[in-house]
Amino acid sequence: MKYTILASSTVGKKSEIAAQLVEKKLKEKMNTGDQVSLINLKEKNMVFSDGRNYLDYPGDTGEVLNEIMEADVFIITSPIFQASIPASLKNIFDLLPQNALQHKTVSFLVTSGTSKHFLVAEHSLKPILSYMKAQIVPNYVYILDIDYQNDQIVSDDAHFRIDRLIEDTQVLAKTYSRIVQEQEEQYGF
Amino acid sequence: MKYTILASSTVGKKSEIAAQLVEKKLKEKMNTGDQVSLINLKEKNMVFSDGRNYLDYPGDTGEVLNEIMEADVFIITSPIFQASIPASLKNIFDLLPQNALQHKTVSFLVTSGTSKHFLVAEHSLKPILSYMKAQIVPNYVYILDIDYQNDQIVSDDAHFRIDRLIEDTQVLAKTYSRIVQEQEEQYGF
Amino acid sequence: MKYTILASSTVGKKSEIAAQLVEKKLKEKMNTGDQVSLINLKEKNMVFSDGRNYLDYPGDTGEVLNEIMEADVFIITSPIFQASIPASLKNIFDLLPQNALQHKTVSFLVTSGTSKHFLVAEHSLKPILSYMKAQIVPNYVYILDIDYQNDQIVSDDAHFRIDRLIEDTQVLAKTYSRIVQEQEEQYGF
Amino acid sequence: MKYTILASSTVGKKSEIAAQLVEKKLKEKMNTGDQVSLINLKEKNMVFSDGRNYLDYPGDTGEVLNEIMEADVFIITSPIFQASIPASLKNIFDLLPQNALQHKTVSFLVTSGTSKHFLVAEHSLKPILSYMKAQIVPNYVYILDIDYQNDQIVSDDAHFRIDRLIEDTQVLAKTYSRIVQEQEEQYGF
Repeated sequence: MKYTILASSTVGKKSEIAAQLVEKKLKEKMNTGDQVSLINLKEKNMVFSDGRNYLDYPGDTGEVLNEIMEADVFIITSPIFQASIPASLKNIFDLLPQNALQHKTVSFLVTSGTSKHFLVAEHSLKPILSYMKAQIVPNYVYILDIDYQNDQIVSDDAHFRIDRLIEDTQVLAKTYSRIVQEQEEQYGF
Repeated sequence: MKYTILASSTVGKKSEIAAQLVEKKLKEKMNTGDQVSLINLKEKNMVFSDGRNYLDYPGDTGEVLNEIMEADVFIITSPIFQASIPASLKNIFDLLPQNALQHKTVSFLVTSGTSKHFLVAEHSLKPILSYMKAQIVPNYVYILDIDYQNDQIVSDDAHFRIDRLIEDTQVLAKTYSRIVQEQEEQYGF
Repeated sequence: MKYTILASSTVGKKSEIAAQLVEKKLKEKMNTGDQVSLINLKEKNMVFSDGRNYLDYPGDTGEVLNEIMEADVFIITSPIFQASIPASLKNIFDLLPQNALQHKTVSFLVTSGTSKHFLVAEHSLKPILSYMKAQIVPNYVYILDIDYQNDQIVSDDAHFRIDRLIEDTQVLAKTYSRIVQEQEEQYGF
Repeated sequence: MKYTILASSTVGKKSEIAAQLVEKKLKEKMNTGDQVSLINLKEKNMVFSDGRNYLDYPGDTGEVLNEIMEADVFIITSPIFQASIPASLKNIFDLLPQNALQHKTVSFLVTSGTSKHFLVAEHSLKPILSYMKAQIVPNYVYILDIDYQNDQIVSDDAHFRIDRLIEDTQVLAKTYSRIVQEQEEQYGF
């Protein structure tokens, strides 16, 4: 399995720190042959979509898109800006083809200063993932600013929920890959 | 009144053409002292938000933000990408402060290839405008690809609905400015 | 102006108490000729829509629908059940014609045990009101269980926000009725 | 596996006809030991939730709730009223406990007169199912009035998509039950 984690913010450190923690925890639970990589959009020089095929973007843009397309599992960490996902994350989706997330298991962790935006993920993120044919892990982790201290996620509950997210993601990915395999065998591919 | 029209796409021509038509129609209905300007994001070199104050961005980014902030009325034309507003439009919101649209009347026109995404404006755009304190014109125009021919909006119905949108926008803007004025007089400002 | 307040829950007392407080505060701010009434769905025997015209329902159902249709201003208080508006409230909308809320100013107050459902109003209520052509007061009041004590809303902040909601509702209703009047005069109706 | 199909409308025949077609197709694909039942809310005398435990409702209400709770797979057919799910369907959710759909696979088919409401399922139904812990089949069937003729679904494409929905539902249900089984074995339950 190839896991790609995306720290999708260009502002602040919260979702970057969360992505690093997901990476660390995921590496502890890897099986032989698994690969884990982390893309931090703050370090990338991304352009806006101009409508061309995703394979034709040079530089960071092309590299980031390729890495996401090659992943079996795509884990997104994102802040909330203006009661919605940030432009930097939406841009990734705009650059990719409509079916880009088909056969990929996608899960996510949202960071926010307020509980009031808990449903942003339901209305601003899941419908996009659904449209792009992702296999979505239904539960997501929502972390508040108070779960952080000294640039670390210190809340036990947050750790517990991240562990659970990783487990849910792995179980869904494994199961889903088995389904695809069985269907292919059944149809003689 | 200062009207700013934003053609918010960096891909394709549909929402740009719509913005130009809105500009033309609006100029025909202007009152003395009104100003109308059109910002086309396809011609601008915008950066992603890095968290700084909107006044501190140099180049196109700073100019675009300033022009929007100075507007009394803000009319957005936008395509739909991946069942959501494009990153280029979301980026404008991310770059502005939370209360940026307070005391502004905001209306919008959405272009799309399919009727199926009609509700994207309700769930992906209005909640953001609402959060940013905009005075939203409730009805919006939704134009399909079949309303265009030779790079022009040819559908009579689309023209009718755009005329109506402009009228609704002007009525709400006028009303809203009267409310603000009366409240200020009442409180002796 | 005719004001109708709807306590839309059939379970619990929170939104009923909120409706009574809105009624009390509204009566203190009434102008000559204004009428205020409160409908409590817990005391009504409502049927589900069977598709007939709203005028043809006998009993409580017909009476409630008539009272809402005659209102100039419609203020809804509602709890959140299962991350959405309750069936008892949705039923009111289902029983009415699509344009039922045209020319009505509609505002609302939501009660909940958790901040996490703050956006339910944006996604589960506003799109319905918008579809039914209501003139929506953009800001809404969201009250938590901790704002209540001994069956009363005790939080000063909640009181302040309800006062503000009433003021916003009255200003929008007054302004809107003036717009309609001016448009009618202009067209010589 | 116990399959329960819910025709959730009390008005019109479209979603009832769809439910019957789903039942017919499902019975053709049943495995030994599977059970299929259809609940038609138009024939049931349901009360609104008054907050009591779902086990304590007498009559139709209690029977319907029990049948849903016993299902492994729950397939909903629903029209759209006022740009949202009907009150009769929301009422079912309000009557059940929050975790009622845990360990259940849930899929749905929506009937409508217009493509414009395609996203109602994403914003008005899926967030509820998600909150109630359902294992949601991501793709749903959306049928238009023109797919019907003489009280039958005649569109080949609609038939194809319903077949696909049933297949997706069965695959997810089977997979999900396998995941639960393996997890139980692992933890030695």
